[in-house]
Amino acid sequence: MRMRAGQPLRRLAVREEPMKNFVLRGNLCTSRTKDSLSWIPHGYVVCEDGRSAGMFAELQERFRQWPLLDWGDCLILPGLVDLHIHAPQYAFRGTGMDLELLEWLNERAFPEEARYQDLDYAGKAYGIFAENMKFSATARACIFATRHREATELLMDLMEATGLRTMVGKVNMDRNCPENLREGTEESIDETRRWLSDIEGKYDHTEPILTPRFIPACSDAVMRGLGDIRRETGLAVQSHLSENQDEAAWVRELCPWAGCYGEAYDGFGMFGGSCASGSPAGKGGSCAPGGSAGKGSPTVMAHCVWPSGEETKLIKERGVFVAHCPQSNTNLCSGIAPVREYLEEGISVGLGTDVAAGCGESIFRAMADAIQVSKLRWKLAEGAGRPLTLEEAFFLGTKGGGAFFGKAGSLEAGYDFDALVVDDRSLSRPGGLSLRERLERVVYLAEGQSLRAKYVEGREIFVR
Amino acid sequence: MRMRAGQPLRRLAVREEPMKNFVLRGNLCTSRTKDSLSWIPHGYVVCEDGRSAGMFAELQERFRQWPLLDWGDCLILPGLVDLHIHAPQYAFRGTGMDLELLEWLNERAFPEEARYQDLDYAGKAYGIFAENMKFSATARACIFATRHREATELLMDLMEATGLRTMVGKVNMDRNCPENLREGTEESIDETRRWLSDIEGKYDHTEPILTPRFIPACSDAVMRGLGDIRRETGLAVQSHLSENQDEAAWVRELCPWAGCYGEAYDGFGMFGGSCASGSPAGKGGSCAPGGSAGKGSPTVMAHCVWPSGEETKLIKERGVFVAHCPQSNTNLCSGIAPVREYLEEGISVGLGTDVAAGCGESIFRAMADAIQVSKLRWKLAEGAGRPLTLEEAFFLGTKGGGAFFGKAGSLEAGYDFDALVVDDRSLSRPGGLSLRERLERVVYLAEGQSLRAKYVEGREIFVR
Repeated sequence: MRMRAGQPLRRLAVREEPMKNFVLRGNLCTSRTKDSLSWIPHGYVVCEDGRSAGMFAELQERFRQWPLLDWGDCLILPGLVDLHIHAPQYAFRGTGMDLELLEWLNERAFPEEARYQDLDYAGKAYGIFAENMKFSATARACIFATRHREATELLMDLMEATGLRTMVGKVNMDRNCPENLREGTEESIDETRRWLSDIEGKYDHTEPILTPRFIPACSDAVMRGLGDIRRETGLAVQSHLSENQDEAAWVRELCPWAGCYGEAYDGFGMFGGSCASGSPAGKGGSCAPGGSAGKGSPTVMAHCVWPSGEETKLIKERGVFVAHCPQSNTNLCSGIAPVREYLEEGISVGLGTDVAAGCGESIFRAMADAIQVSKLRWKLAEGAGRPLTLEEAFFLGTKGGGAFFGKAGSLEAGYDFDALVVDDRSLSRPGGLSLRERLERVVYLAEGQSLRAKYVEGREIFVR
Repeated sequence: MRMRAGQPLRRLAVREEPMKNFVLRGNLCTSRTKDSLSWIPHGYVVCEDGRSAGMFAELQERFRQWPLLDWGDCLILPGLVDLHIHAPQYAFRGTGMDLELLEWLNERAFPEEARYQDLDYAGKAYGIFAENMKFSATARACIFATRHREATELLMDLMEATGLRTMVGKVNMDRNCPENLREGTEESIDETRRWLSDIEGKYDHTEPILTPRFIPACSDAVMRGLGDIRRETGLAVQSHLSENQDEAAWVRELCPWAGCYGEAYDGFGMFGGSCASGSPAGKGGSCAPGGSAGKGSPTVMAHCVWPSGEETKLIKERGVFVAHCPQSNTNLCSGIAPVREYLEEGISVGLGTDVAAGCGESIFRAMADAIQVSKLRWKLAEGAGRPLTLEEAFFLGTKGGGAFFGKAGSLEAGYDFDALVVDDRSLSRPGGLSLRERLERVVYLAEGQSLRAKYVEGREIFVR
């Protein structure tokens, strides 16, 4: 059953039951390894029960009767993955950029986040966020909400409705923040438990993730309580790590028992793979190494701009994912994360937009930013590794970050079927371009790219 | 005569004679000094014979009968100024970003530029460039063409038709470049003279500018010939300076007589203000200091990333403009120009996109890039000055670069009437924003901004 893209797609959009099995045709591109792309010009990628059944130059016999959407000369790419974004900050993205991290939190982020106590405001602001995420190139995201349980549940309802695959966290914060955002220590844990109970079984593709804001805002008691919840539930964890030198110095004061900032999470079982048993804070973590390779849900730490050698070692041992947020690290004068070194160490790295320290939700832009800052680091920082390539940046924004969700971020067989259809005709050109050049343009000129369709786990998110 | 924006504007667009005198109403913003913005909420800016007659909170009696276009809550900003862009490279923007300057020239820029020998190709490619420039936020630009006289004239025809104010240069290059781009030394000067003669009196707002590609591609004889033409014509000059450390080392080999790269231009009377008499290459330039303050047309040098102290001094003495191209300098791993130090020295600085080493033609993006790289320089480079502010970046992209054209880049009385109407409603927000925050968003989220109208010297470029 062959259909031209356009007319049949409208039919697809109004089906009551989404098609479980279908074929997309176009110029396929996916990361094979972290430094190689795989292309099939005018190839076929098959969705079977929400997963990719493979990429083909010629369609196999058994798929020939399945609905086929022919996207002509469009590019078909895996859906992008954002490992770090703050939903409540979306409202003020692109403003307040003249401040450094700790000032920016106090002057911008915290006052805005306090507004999410008001569910009317939250509905309005999160509605805009969810709508923009839906029509972005992002298929999956790790999302910070605020400390407010009800608003977090509302955000989860809205994200569920988009069809994206997301992990959303109610934030914990019981110290070093304005009173109108500060939770009581017990309250913080109780509300987290109530949140998890409220949403249990409620969503198909929206999951909770434990979200201590960062060590300066979380007392040992809150961290201990979260560690307990983690051991009971096996939930994934997201937080911030070594973003800024002042922040790291502050953590050394707050947790003198921790040899590095990462250890301040690790001591509570909040750093890395699954945890079999916990211990209160004390030097030496209690988690089994794990991460994507081990059992249980992994941890993602945003930034990791200023790791000590010890911290890098711990990130690697625990299988912690690094969410590299190049634009945020630039805007807040944080610095440039040593991504080349992380990749050489075999550490799992993905990209984050970190809205609103990053200005927008585009992971294409984050790919370009990652390459650009790696060039400046290479030029300006003593001993820095060579810059990232397009292939590497594309990997980070797809398969690299996708691994946090399991098998995601690739069009290859066995991966969840997350796909983007990109029509780049608006990037007018007088001569021909190779497919790699077309991809490079989409990454660098993301504002000019036009998404025609997005699928997540085989669900049609939109077609236009 | 009061009109609502929208309906009357369509009438304006089809007038045979453009209105010489009219008033725009909206939220006015312009740079007053290099670090202060001037705002008039719901104010009036008056165009009288192509110049601004001033910005007003209340409309003066004598302007009340003039056509008034009320743009409601839109922002009204001065037209932006791009001091450095390569028209023939527009075709491959956003590709080939994994190379450094000298490789990139040989592998990307030169092969593409060679195609402009073919006028059909040139027409197609320059047509796309001119169309995109017309609908961009840029009102004025200094544009490199190629070495080809005919294609350069075609580009000037196309730019004239856009209504923008531009300076366009036929490039001179007679060494160290591929044979199919290399001019004979005499040919280079003869063709330049013929070009200037062909276009004499032909355009209203498109001017020629002398354009030696850069010292490595221009023999002393060509530089001497251009110096002669400059003394005869008083034309402005544009070129490249101290972009890359390898390039600067090469210039030291090529021009051992020059104490710094800038002196290699200066020795031929191609650096700074007007020239009364010339001298062949030899240490010590022959130009009177001038630049914007002196007589004659000034010189603009792109990049200036790696100036020696001596070069900075010469730039200042000669009144040379620096075209700061932050994205290009990042993409080509060139480094980060010391803009803070230039501003403190009182050197004239504007912004350049440097397409295609910069990916796109947005000067809003260049403003954000300038701030961002200044933050990384401040963080990573020993002794670097503090980062640029929004106010400073906005100044660079408007009044700072505008000074190269005379009185341009401001809405203030006496400046050429270049204005943008920006409708930022698409940047949805749940709460209110100050006007400064709205400007900051337009700068950082330029892809989301929507230009409703552009005027250059009072000419309506487009309205939509």
